[in-house]
Order: sequence, then C-alpha cells, then structure tokens
Amino acid sequence: MFCIKPTLLVFMVFIACAYPQSPDGYNLWLGYDKVGKPKLLKEYKDLTNSIYFEDGGEVLKTAKKEMVTGMEKILGTTLNFTEASNTNNTFLIAKTATLETSLKEKMSDDLSEVGSEGFVLKSITHKGKKLFVLAANEDIGILYGVFRLLNLMQQHKDLSTISLVEYPKIDLRMLNHWDNLDRTVERGYAGFSLWNWHKLPEYLDQRYLDYARANASIGINAVSLTNVNANSLILTPMYLEKVSALATVFRPYGIKVYLTARFSAPMEIGGLETADPLDPKVQQWWNNKVNKIYSLIPDFGGFLVKANSEGQPGPQNYGRNHVDGANMMARALQPHNGLVIWRAFVYSEHDPEDRAKQAFSEFVPLDGLFRDNVLIQTKNGAIDFQPREPFHPMFGAMPNTPLMMEFQITQEYLGFSTHLVFLPKLYEEVLDSDTYSKGKGSTVAKVVDGSLDNNKISGMAGVSNIGNDLNWTGHPFAQANWYGFGRLAWDPYISAGTIADEWLRATYSNNPDFIEPVKNMMLNSREAVVNYMNPLGLHHIFDTGHHYGPGPWVHELSRPEWNPTYYHKADTKGIGFNRSNSGSNATGQYAPEVAKTFNDPNTCPEEYLLWFHHLPWDYTLKNGYSLWDGMALKYEEGVDQVEEMIETWNNAQPYITKEQYQEVHMLLKIQLKEAKWWRNACLLYFQTYSQKALPKEVEKSPKSLEYYQSLKFPFAPGIRPQWD
Amino acid sequence: MFCIKPTLLVFMVFIACAYPQSPDGYNLWLGYDKVGKPKLLKEYKDLTNSIYFEDGGEVLKTAKKEMVTGMEKILGTTLNFTEASNTNNTFLIAKTATLETSLKEKMSDDLSEVGSEGFVLKSITHKGKKLFVLAANEDIGILYGVFRLLNLMQQHKDLSTISLVEYPKIDLRMLNHWDNLDRTVERGYAGFSLWNWHKLPEYLDQRYLDYARANASIGINAVSLTNVNANSLILTPMYLEKVSALATVFRPYGIKVYLTARFSAPMEIGGLETADPLDPKVQQWWNNKVNKIYSLIPDFGGFLVKANSEGQPGPQNYGRNHVDGANMMARALQPHNGLVIWRAFVYSEHDPEDRAKQAFSEFVPLDGLFRDNVLIQTKNGAIDFQPREPFHPMFGAMPNTPLMMEFQITQEYLGFSTHLVFLPKLYEEVLDSDTYSKGKGSTVAKVVDGSLDNNKISGMAGVSNIGNDLNWTGHPFAQANWYGFGRLAWDPYISAGTIADEWLRATYSNNPDFIEPVKNMMLNSREAVVNYMNPLGLHHIFDTGHHYGPGPWVHELSRPEWNPTYYHKADTKGIGFNRSNSGSNATGQYAPEVAKTFNDPNTCPEEYLLWFHHLPWDYTLKNGYSLWDGMALKYEEGVDQVEEMIETWNNAQPYITKEQYQEVHMLLKIQLKEAKWWRNACLLYFQTYSQKALPKEVEKSPKSLEYYQSLKFPFAPGIRPQWD
Repeated sequence: MFCIKPTLLVFMVFIACAYPQSPDGYNLWLGYDKVGKPKLLKEYKDLTNSIYFEDGGEVLKTAKKEMVTGMEKILGTTLNFTEASNTNNTFLIAKTATLETSLKEKMSDDLSEVGSEGFVLKSITHKGKKLFVLAANEDIGILYGVFRLLNLMQQHKDLSTISLVEYPKIDLRMLNHWDNLDRTVERGYAGFSLWNWHKLPEYLDQRYLDYARANASIGINAVSLTNVNANSLILTPMYLEKVSALATVFRPYGIKVYLTARFSAPMEIGGLETADPLDPKVQQWWNNKVNKIYSLIPDFGGFLVKANSEGQPGPQNYGRNHVDGANMMARALQPHNGLVIWRAFVYSEHDPEDRAKQAFSEFVPLDGLFRDNVLIQTKNGAIDFQPREPFHPMFGAMPNTPLMMEFQITQEYLGFSTHLVFLPKLYEEVLDSDTYSKGKGSTVAKVVDGSLDNNKISGMAGVSNIGNDLNWTGHPFAQANWYGFGRLAWDPYISAGTIADEWLRATYSNNPDFIEPVKNMMLNSREAVVNYMNPLGLHHIFDTGHHYGPGPWVHELSRPEWNPTYYHKADTKGIGFNRSNSGSNATGQYAPEVAKTFNDPNTCPEEYLLWFHHLPWDYTLKNGYSLWDGMALKYEEGVDQVEEMIETWNNAQPYITKEQYQEVHMLLKIQLKEAKWWRNACLLYFQTYSQKALPKEVEKSPKSLEYYQSLKFPFAPGIRPQWD
Repeated sequence: MFCIKPTLLVFMVFIACAYPQSPDGYNLWLGYDKVGKPKLLKEYKDLTNSIYFEDGGEVLKTAKKEMVTGMEKILGTTLNFTEASNTNNTFLIAKTATLETSLKEKMSDDLSEVGSEGFVLKSITHKGKKLFVLAANEDIGILYGVFRLLNLMQQHKDLSTISLVEYPKIDLRMLNHWDNLDRTVERGYAGFSLWNWHKLPEYLDQRYLDYARANASIGINAVSLTNVNANSLILTPMYLEKVSALATVFRPYGIKVYLTARFSAPMEIGGLETADPLDPKVQQWWNNKVNKIYSLIPDFGGFLVKANSEGQPGPQNYGRNHVDGANMMARALQPHNGLVIWRAFVYSEHDPEDRAKQAFSEFVPLDGLFRDNVLIQTKNGAIDFQPREPFHPMFGAMPNTPLMMEFQITQEYLGFSTHLVFLPKLYEEVLDSDTYSKGKGSTVAKVVDGSLDNNKISGMAGVSNIGNDLNWTGHPFAQANWYGFGRLAWDPYISAGTIADEWLRATYSNNPDFIEPVKNMMLNSREAVVNYMNPLGLHHIFDTGHHYGPGPWVHELSRPEWNPTYYHKADTKGIGFNRSNSGSNATGQYAPEVAKTFNDPNTCPEEYLLWFHHLPWDYTLKNGYSLWDGMALKYEEGVDQVEEMIETWNNAQPYITKEQYQEVHMLLKIQLKEAKWWRNACLLYFQTYSQKALPKEVEKSPKSLEYYQSLKFPFAPGIRPQWD
C-alpha cells in the first residue's frame, strides 16, 4: 500500500492515458472529457449518484450503454444503478408507461407535448424529494434524452434547475451519402466511402457503430447510403444483404436506411424492356423488389430518387411526369410505410429558359398530385449549393406537398475539406428567409417543418461530408457542419451561434478565452468564403467538373448552363444575371412582396445583387464605391478575413494540443493560398471586361490570368465517376 | 490523501484509459504496453535509470524522441537524462566518434562489423561499473537500435546480459506502393492510398509520420510512392513539390523516397515526339528532370520502372532493349547517387513461349551490361505472386547483376485483406530455396543479399498492403506481413516462427497460453490457403481482373496467358502444365541439380507437381491416393484448416479484448465461406474433366458449377484503374 494525493492520482491517470490516444478527431463531439471543476463535478455526481434505468428493447439498452460510456468518462466514476423504480431514486430514466402515477400526472402536459421522439429532462421536487428525471413516451426519446444530457454536461451546464421539454420539429432528419459502390464518393473530400461493400455483410466495421452513435447523438434518424447518381446493383440480392447488415447496426440507434433507386433498374437488373411507370410489368417489378427489401429489412425507410436530372433516367423518358414516377414507387412502398423522396433538382440543356426557373416550372404545377408518402426534396437555392443563393422559390409555392430541404454539408462549392467554413450560418440564413407565401413570417423553416401548411410529414436532408478519413470529415471544423446540420434538422430555429458554442465545448474546450474568439471565427467564416469566391451575388464561376478553384472564363462546355459565363454574363458594360422582371423574371416565381424587393437593385439585398441584376461596372453600391471597386474590395476582404482566422487560431494555441493546433493551422494556410488564388484569378479575368484599375487596397496578383487559366487538376477529389 | 493498493491503481488507470482509445490496430506493433511483471519492470528501470543520449541531427533527435515515447509507456515512468557523457551513466547511447576512448577500443570489433546502419546493444562491465550501451557508427544505427531495444522490451526479453551486434544484411529495404494519383490502390485491399495528394504539400497528415515510424521500427529505408503502372504527372513540378513534402516527413526516419517513372514521360509531359532512350533530346530531358527532382529532394532515392510489361511503354517500343532504357536513366541519376530499379516482370502475348520462361529469356543474356546503379527487381516466382511458386530461375542466373527480390505483401492472390495468411512462411520458403548456382547452399537469400556473388548493392522490395483503413492493412493479422517483410529485408535468415513470436508479443500479449496456439495458427495459415486455392502446384486459376475467388473455367480472354485454362491445362486425361524437359522445358532455366529434381514427377516436390507436370487423373501420389482424390482431399484440408483457425481464435478470447476477438472472428468467418467457395467451384469444374466421384471425406457443394460461374464482382477492390 502506498499513499498519494487525489490530485496526483488524476495526474498519473492523465499521464498514463496520454499515449496511445485516438488519432485526433476520431471521437468527434463525443470525446467526453472529464469535468475538471470540483464544484460542478460534485453537482453532477449528486444528481446521478443513484440511477434507475428502465429495462427494455435494444434502443433502450443502447441508451443505457451510451449513458454509462459517456457519464463514466465525464464524471470519472462508475455509475450506480438500482433495480427497482421508485421515487426515492435520485435519477430516474423511464418511459411514460412505467412512471409512478402521481409523477406521470405531474409530467403529463410535458409528455404529451414531446410526442414519440421527444423527451422531458427535469430536476423536480416530488413528494418532498428532489428528483432528476428523464422521461419519454418511446425508447428513442430516452436515447435522444441521454445524448442531450451528456451534451449538456460536456458544456458544463447547470443541471440543478433544468427543465427541458424537447422534441424534433422535423420528422425526417436525414443524411444523403453520395457514395458509389466502388467506394469513391461524388463530391466527397474526406477520403472514401465508409461502406466497405466488399467485406459486408459479415464484417461490421467499428466505424459503422461509431457513425450511428454520432448521428443519434444529434437526432439524425435516416440515412441514404448510396449516390443519387445511382447504380442499380444496390438493389440486387447480393447488395441488399449487405445493406441489411448495415441496417442492423444502425437500428439500435433509431436510424433507418434508405437507398437510391435508379429509375431504369427494371431494365438493368430486372431484364424488362422498359421502365415506363405506367407499364404493369414495371409496377409489378417494383412491388416485388420492395417486398424483397422489406423481407430483409423490416424497417427499411424507402427510396431517394434523382430522375430526369443530369442524364439520370426517369419517367420523362417514357413521356410520363414526376407524379407518374414517384407515385408508382410510392404505391409499392405504401404497404410497408416506406417513403419516396423525389428530388426537384432538374434542369434541361434543351430548355432555353433560365436554369434557375426550371425546377419551379416543372414541379409547382404538380402540387397536390403526389401520394401521401412522397416528399419532394428541394435544394436550398435554385441553382446548386453555391456559397450563397437566395432561397429556392419552390419553398412556399407548393402548400399541398411536403417539401424536404436539401442542404449540402460536403463543401463541393466551398473549398472542399480544406476551407474552414461554418455552414450553419448558411443554413440559418436560408431557414430564416421569409417566403411571404402566407404573409410576413412565412419563413422557409416553417415550410420545411410543415407548420406553415400543416403537412403530414416533414424532412431535412444533408448531403454528407463524411468519409473514411481518421477524423471523418477531412477538416476538423467540418465536423461542426455535420453536427450543425443535425441540430438544425432537429430544430430549425436554433441559432448558428448556439450550435458553434455547443460544438466547440463538446469538441475542444469550455474555456471562454478559447470559445469566444474561435466562435467568432466560425461565425464569420461563411461570409469570408462568399467574399473571396462569389461576392455580391456572383455564382457558379467554379472551374469545370471538379469545382476546385475559380473558372469564370469557362465558356465552351456543350451544355450552355454548365458554363460559368452563363451565370456571371460579364461584358464590357457590366456584370450579373438579369433575373428581374426586365430579364428572365425568375423573381416572378417568388411571392409578390419578395419579388418586388428583388426586382429593384436599390431594394435587392446587395448580397444577391448580381444574382438578379446585370449592372454597369460604375454602378454605385450602398457604400459609395463603384461596382468594380466594391467587388474587388470584397475579394480582398475575403482574403483579409482568412488572415484574421489564422491569427485567431494562433492565439488559441494555449488551449489546445499541439496536434490540434498544427492540423488546423496547416489547413488555414491552404485556405489563405486558395483565397488569394480566387481573388487574383477572378479579378484578372473580370478586369478584361471592366478595363479598370484595381483599388489600391487590393493586393496585385503575382501571376498572370493565363497562368491561372492553365491550371489543371485531373485528380482533384470528388469527381463524378465514369461508370454511369 | 488516501491510500490504495498498487494493483488497484493499475486497475484504475486501466479503467480510465479504456475509453477513448485508439481504434483497434492503429498503433500497429508500437502499442508499447506497460510491463506488468514487477521483477522485469525493475530490471528494465535499473538498466535505464540514468541515460546519456548523444545530441545530434534530426535522425538522432528522432531516435531520442522515439525512445522517450516508447520507454515511458513501457516503464510507466519518466526517463532521466544526464547532460554529460561519462561511463558512470547506466545507459549510454552514443556514436562511435563520441565514445570514451577505452570503451571505443573495447567495442571496436563489434562497431566495425555493424557498418553504417547497424548498432551494438550490450550490457557490459567497464572499469568495474555496469553499463548498458547502445552504440553505432551513424545516427541511423542509433535509431534502429532504439527501436530494437523497445521491441525487446515489448517481448519481455532479459536485457541484463544482452549482447547484440546487429546490422542489415540487405542494403535497400523497400516498400513499393501501387498507389494511383486518384488514391485508388491497384491490388489494394486496405482502403485507399495514404497519400492525400490534393492536400499536399501543405497538409501533412499525422499518418505520414506514423507510417514512417512503423517502417523505421523494422528497418525499412526506402519507399516508392506510386504505382508501377505509372502516371507521368507525378514527375511534374506540382506533384514533385508534394513528393518533397513527404520526403521531409520521412527523412528523420532514414527513409528515402522513390518514384515510378513512366517511360513515355518525355512525350506525355515533356512535349517530345519520342521516348527513344538513345535520342539525345530524350536523354537530356531525363537529365533535366532528375536535376530538378534533386533540387527539391536532395536525398531522392531513384526510379522504379515497369517497362514493356503489360502494356506499359518501354525501350522496346523504339527497338531498344532493357539495358538501353535502364542505363539511360541510370546515367541521369548517377551524379546524385540515385538508383534505377528495373522490373523483370515481362511477358508478351505475342510470344508463344511458356510465360514462365520469358523474363529469364529476356534478361539473363543482359547480365553484366547494366550500370552499377541499376538493380533488376525480380518477383519471387516466374508467374505472378501465386500462393505458391517455385523460386524464379533468374535468381542465381545473373551473377553480375544485383537482383532485387520483389515480394507481394498485399494479398492479390491470397484472399485480399479478408484471409488470415502469414506471408513470412512464403517468403522464408523462397529465400531458403537452393539455386545451386554455385553448388549446394546457393540459396536465394544469398543471391538477394549479394553475398553469393559479392554484389555491390542488394535490395528487397515488398508490394505494400497498406491503405487508409484505421488499422492500416485491413486485416489485423496483415500487419504481421508488413512487419515480417521488414524483418526479412533486414535479415533474410530470420525464421517465420521468430517473426510471428515477436509480432504477437508486440501486438497482442506475452502470455504463452495465447502465443503458442496463435503462433501455430499463423504458421499454418499459408499452407491452408494453398490447399483451398491452389494445391499441388496449381496456379493462376483466379477469376479474371479482380482475382477475387476462383475462375478456373475462364478461357476466352484475348491474351492467351491471362486465361486460367492456360495454366492448369485440365482435360479428360489429366491436369497440369508440362514444364519439364518433355514439355516447355522451363526446368532447363534452373541449375542442373534443380532441373533434374523438377523434371521427374517422382522427385519433384509434390507442392510443385502440377506446376511442372501434366499428369493423369489416376496418377498415384506419395500418400497412395490418386491425383484426383488427393487434389480433392487437399481442397478439403484447406477448408478444415480454416475451421481449426476459428477454433484457435475462439480459445484465444480470454487473452484479448472483445473488439480484438470480434474483428478477427468476423474475418475468419469470411475466410471459411470463401475457402468453401474455392473448394466447391474448383472441384466441380475439374470434375467435368476427371469424371470421377469425390472422396467421401470431401463435403459436397450445395450449389452448382453454373452458380459459381455466374458470380460477378464489378466493384471488387483493387482493380486496375481505367485511366492508363
């Protein structure tokens, strides 16, 4: 026996654990550092020193396991569970049905509010005794409540007076993986697909489980495993067995699996001569296929479909429309409570109409014609996941159809996984936008969560930024975008600031000297990327195919609407796409109040100026600068903002490990290099039209326009596969 | 203050560390578990309780850092370093030049023996004092000595009387990565390439460092980063900067970087109209390119070249030969001490000669014509990395040319990364083979290490099995093949058993109840895979392209020698390839003593029987069975051996974590399924020729031959990329 001070013991444990450690970032926001403050630690221990955790099925067992894993690390002690449920327990975790009657009555209002997925977490006094209660109507509510509680402890929140009544505002909280069967990921910048199809179904990688844990911890309850540019093979028996194995891993975490269904599958793997949705043989084929899937995966979610879009087959190949196609699949899925998620991302190279208008034109007339188990998944803007777009005019325009939001988490147009960009700022901007479809206050958030039009089902999808990199997302801060997407899918009214705060505390540190500046860096990062890439409403001026770096000069692609020149329309007179009522009248697709604002350059928010207007180079901006000077200064501002980010991160060094510092520092250096590349290349190119000098504040380019135009990146990551 | 038992403390530390942990396998054989036995721990601590570590350059600094990292974990304590070097130190780490004179004299014999890369590690008494000394002539010897010492401690070896005089027997100990610029890996089964070209040169992944650490720990000193089916872009400035960044990470670990040079690069990236090696412009282009490379990477290793092989361009495109091609590059590299490693893996679809003979025919006449800085890299056998091949007849046949051994660590023909196969058994078998080129005892090992022919340089290459899977190699036991390759490249006379023992102790446990059965499982695993895939000398009967599973029936490929039927030649009379003096006379390429043995089926080792002979189905094997029955029983034996492996692993459960058990268990289940697939498919197919019933001991196939022939795997991993 020997004697040591408790503090020394803690120190020894720290030393012993310092190595080996998880490679930085593998644990995501679930690192569960032990609480260091003695008073808070005591408070948490007192609250949880005797626990009743209701027995139950696999979801409830999972909840208990997660609570043990997390809380034992946070508290640095073993948890004590009691067998019997009674109100003498300090911490009571139970479903409504098993609550003691008087307690149930006391909580009945809250519990009826939280529905099937929510939970109530309260410190209460009941019959003169202090109780800490986590209650829910269903198992999954308990699981979400456990993760929420752990998250609050990670944030060092005071729990002694807590009264939380939480439930998801959106039904379907979904990740879309654009993962191919060869494990490449379209627009993936964090390595390759997590799904090791070759070793499935027998080999279940530990990452599948850790992926499910991370998703459940932020409320994600649905994942589509495969690329929307789909391969029919995923629907063959060999692959369905593999999908079933993944579904088995995800099930205890309340996550349902979806697949992308290639519309021509009945021909490619079914041997039929057509995929016409009105052909009875085709319908029968889908019915049989769906029945087969449900025999393997009883809780299969349904199909995500990209049809008649960018070369994908669809009902229009047979003279049918989206309703014909979607409803055919919906009929097959209905008996199993499966869903069809039909994407609205359509535009045609043969349609001379402004690409921004085409999806609205195709879909809005179909409002109300889709079956009840169909959702129309609509990108946040009318073009394609640009650093900034006005909200998609379809939101608010189809009151009788559930419109599912599609955000992109992977940074196709936002610097891949090398740029630090906090996307909840983008999501928040879209969700807060007012469609005016039912008057002022008809925000996109209310359309998406179904409250505006009282839809029966609602959904939000995020195109995943997850790959097999050790830290999952390539950039450590890109984890915050996965986290933030999940939080907003749970509650589209949470602020980006709150999300950044939560994530930083759970991931790095609770030290306010770290949190405040780094949070500000995150919150400003999205405006920085807009500034150095696409300021003042510019959009889609990325280099072709890979979308890596600037390519505003590209104009020779066969499809007109794939050329950046289509979007910026720079000429000697000016720049911008006239989508006002004097131009393509894309503004006419919005509610009159919105259209009016956008139509007039004087009322149009300047961040959308060149989205809606073609303006002369000497047009005067609100700050008094000419359009040319103002644009150049915006580019410079973006670069300067990245310099500031580097400084902020340098100042954060004392609060993080050397490896954590170094990793982000290296990435910020790349971001700065590429921000300058954007500024230089775009300004040199646009200068050939404006014929004006740069303002003195703008750094001159060390290289020529020809140099930037000569750059080629044949192996840039995330390029579309060749096999489809 | 409170008091606890030391054992309890250990337990508490264990609990506290249990989570988060490195995902299983990330630490490879460098986990450095703390020594649990108190007596041994004390011995180690006494040996090292005061340390003098000579100051020096980055390699020496690295050695010190590695010693601190490893030993502090193994001993669970902080190391004490003293500033001054004197013989009162317990543990002295120094180079020859700084050793105190009398000590230097005492060790001079040893130190002159170990050359520039070796080291001496001794417990000695000097001037009446006990000393523990690690000495070397160069920094790199100290680094290797540190890793060796840590390895011995991991194995719980007694160090009190140690006297180790070690140096590498082979100069060039090299990994060949078949990694493409898009991060796919040809024949890679552990995820995708470690090299994240997109984020290089700025972003240096922690894995690059950990990769270098692992390699240096087993003595690997050279890596070729790119696929031998090469892409010229790697030689462009943009990529060379990225290569330089990797070289900077590897340099402190004594590892040099090599690149694969595409022979047609002067045309593809140089704008020349020819790549003729005798054209002065081509020669100048390579000179300039090499100078440019060395300006970025002063210690660049050289080029690895696959020329005129499987469609790759080469000197023969211009009517020149391998000497012309290799020597041109060698002249460019010579001023920088760079090397050309020229592969001998050549065969032509237009040559009607037995493919097994073609490399010998092309290269042996060139013996002595290559420049001093050229090595000819020769696969271990004359076909292509089969589960078993007789040694390549070129070994021993080119005494005036350094023949570099090329082993495959990645399991292209050995079940990918799902089959547990301990490859040092295969390597050992090849290295121990007697070429008889200078009489009995002229083993392949002596050819490769240069001792037989007194070559000026020697080398061994292993085609890497490393990818970005969390555990690096896909299968945890495939780490042992990386480890074992390195150990054999360091010393080709170490036994496979010793390697298995070392690796198990460093990776899993020192418990003999674990070690003995699991070591036996490893040592028997290679024979198991031969049995269930390619018994009795059968070879290359894999399914086309991906080489996943059996395809003995494939016969319609355009190149005759790519068809499995070319190799097994089964017909109603019998099976096997007659390469004896009555057939293709491939045996004639061996020394007369070897040829004689192989020519006669009665003296030919039965493991090579069908490699060299076409024999009737009722030919009697040494065990008395007919060839048909004996072959069938071999297939069955292979399956039975996998069943035994599963049982062995089940019995190992008490000694490992649940995750460690589960991971390998799942993989063994796949191995069993696939072993049965091999047995069933091959026997059903060969039965169509033999027309004989299976012996009763052989389990009947539940599926038909047609079923097995119908299986398709378009997305099997490791398939050759389409871009070349």
